[in-house]
Amino acid sequence: MEPLRVAFLGPAASFSHQAAVESFGPSASLYPKLSFADAFASVQNTEADFAIIPFENSTNGSVVQTLDLLADRKDLYKDVKVCGEHYLTVHHCLLARKDAFPSNPPDYSSITKLYTHPQAWGQCEIFLSKHFKGVERQDVSSTSKAAEIVLKTPTELSAAIASKFAAEYHGLAILAENIEDKADNTTRFLVLRNVKSERTAQITFDQVKGPVIQERSELAVPRKTLISFLLRQNAPGALADALLVFKDHGMNLTSISTRPSHRQAWRYVFFVEGQRVLTDENKEAVDRILQSLRAVTDSCRDWGTWKDQLLRAQAENGSN
Amino acid sequence: MEPLRVAFLGPAASFSHQAAVESFGPSASLYPKLSFADAFASVQNTEADFAIIPFENSTNGSVVQTLDLLADRKDLYKDVKVCGEHYLTVHHCLLARKDAFPSNPPDYSSITKLYTHPQAWGQCEIFLSKHFKGVERQDVSSTSKAAEIVLKTPTELSAAIASKFAAEYHGLAILAENIEDKADNTTRFLVLRNVKSERTAQITFDQVKGPVIQERSELAVPRKTLISFLLRQNAPGALADALLVFKDHGMNLTSISTRPSHRQAWRYVFFVEGQRVLTDENKEAVDRILQSLRAVTDSCRDWGTWKDQLLRAQAENGSN
Repeated sequence: MEPLRVAFLGPAASFSHQAAVESFGPSASLYPKLSFADAFASVQNTEADFAIIPFENSTNGSVVQTLDLLADRKDLYKDVKVCGEHYLTVHHCLLARKDAFPSNPPDYSSITKLYTHPQAWGQCEIFLSKHFKGVERQDVSSTSKAAEIVLKTPTELSAAIASKFAAEYHGLAILAENIEDKADNTTRFLVLRNVKSERTAQITFDQVKGPVIQERSELAVPRKTLISFLLRQNAPGALADALLVFKDHGMNLTSISTRPSHRQAWRYVFFVEGQRVLTDENKEAVDRILQSLRAVTDSCRDWGTWKDQLLRAQAENGSN
Repeated sequence: MEPLRVAFLGPAASFSHQAAVESFGPSASLYPKLSFADAFASVQNTEADFAIIPFENSTNGSVVQTLDLLADRKDLYKDVKVCGEHYLTVHHCLLARKDAFPSNPPDYSSITKLYTHPQAWGQCEIFLSKHFKGVERQDVSSTSKAAEIVLKTPTELSAAIASKFAAEYHGLAILAENIEDKADNTTRFLVLRNVKSERTAQITFDQVKGPVIQERSELAVPRKTLISFLLRQNAPGALADALLVFKDHGMNLTSISTRPSHRQAWRYVFFVEGQRVLTDENKEAVDRILQSLRAVTDSCRDWGTWKDQLLRAQAENGSN
């Protein structure tokens, strides 16, 4: 079979790119997409086998752009489902051109300008206030773009705050590693596939992730399920009833998010994630939950079930 | 008594300013604050009697900055509570200097530059694509700031997209009114007070809003309550149990929001709003809910109870 085609949120060397490489390995063909919507569309139209998109960050919360696409208000992504997740711990480095600061340890005082994404300034406050007080800061649309600007502006003595992955991709020197204030700032990505694709029916995301483990330990890995719904209008008590359905069918609620429905002001699309260890009793839980939800909702949708990767991620990071 | 002191999220002539004027009338002293945190702090330190802050928008969803302050992770706002709400329908106008476009109807083709907040471009797409294709656009931090720039740059033939309120405040001409795509784009504001303040204990927000109506119809107005909580760690089923508590005590869940707790990755602070019409049975509901929540949470907090203004707002706007 030809290599797997994986879409990620660009530009090249973004954290999504890194997540794609970590999830799909070196043999996959990776395609940067300009927007979240382009990544979703590439799976719907089967131009890509999978897409990997950021869903939430442990410090900043939900990624609203992703929730808005999962709300799918215009029914554009009807064959898209979630088939996996990936956790990526966000580490920042100080990067510069390889020829710019030859001394070791590097002399920060000669750096006259810093580039990064606006969110990264706040994540590296301790390091910046120690070494870069009063130095000019330039906001850029992504950390990867910051690295690229530093590479392509040899007339400046500038540095970028970006990932080690971006340093390697752009061929920049790492002046300082792990300069973030919080060691456990982590982004969770969702992996999307098209349920009508024959290619991804043959090779699942779990098979991509690694060798299939023995059946017994396999079953012990908790499964997560994402379901979205829009409650009936003027139905007092409907939200509590809808959430109770998950509990009634053996699903432990792990997260709830909402977005405006855009049908009417103050009506929301709910996104509920539940978790369960598969048993004979709960193996039909998702179908039963959807059946019960239909009684209290105008619409509901099963976004898929996948293996919980959090325990694996925590073991690798040694945190939490 | 000296006039009520009300803090709002600045700059002057912002939508928060308009909400403050609509809620507190012309006799109150209004103070613009530079940040959401400054508005919260002004109530905690009793520099202001009330603060009015945006909580959610019917199109764009929750205002994350407000939720992060309500999470109160550093215990900075322990005496702050919600005592009311206000709905403001967002209408945009095209504004210019009064002397710049004397013809009537105004000649849009001579306008060479537009200023507004980034979100407003997307809210006025139909009008802009009809009249301003290809015209230079400059992002500004607020619509009110856009109006101010147009006023103070007489060398340009520019226009701002901002509110009628901002036009009146800055003395600009309104070239076109209600240029937004969606007529019912509404922002809900919360009114904050300090529970230890004697001044606001004497004059409540409800009394400010208007003459106190007869006791019977008064009781029929639904009450909203906001409660936040942090679940115990590793407690499967706790979220469903916590939400069930609201139903058990006669409270209809109307919204759920979450923010990262910053205590541990993937632990959230939940914000739950419930609604009830006061009865003899449910008059102690809030205390009972908090008591039950303590069994499944690490912490929980009553953010206050106030009169639901949605029906009143919908009647005024004639929408929904």
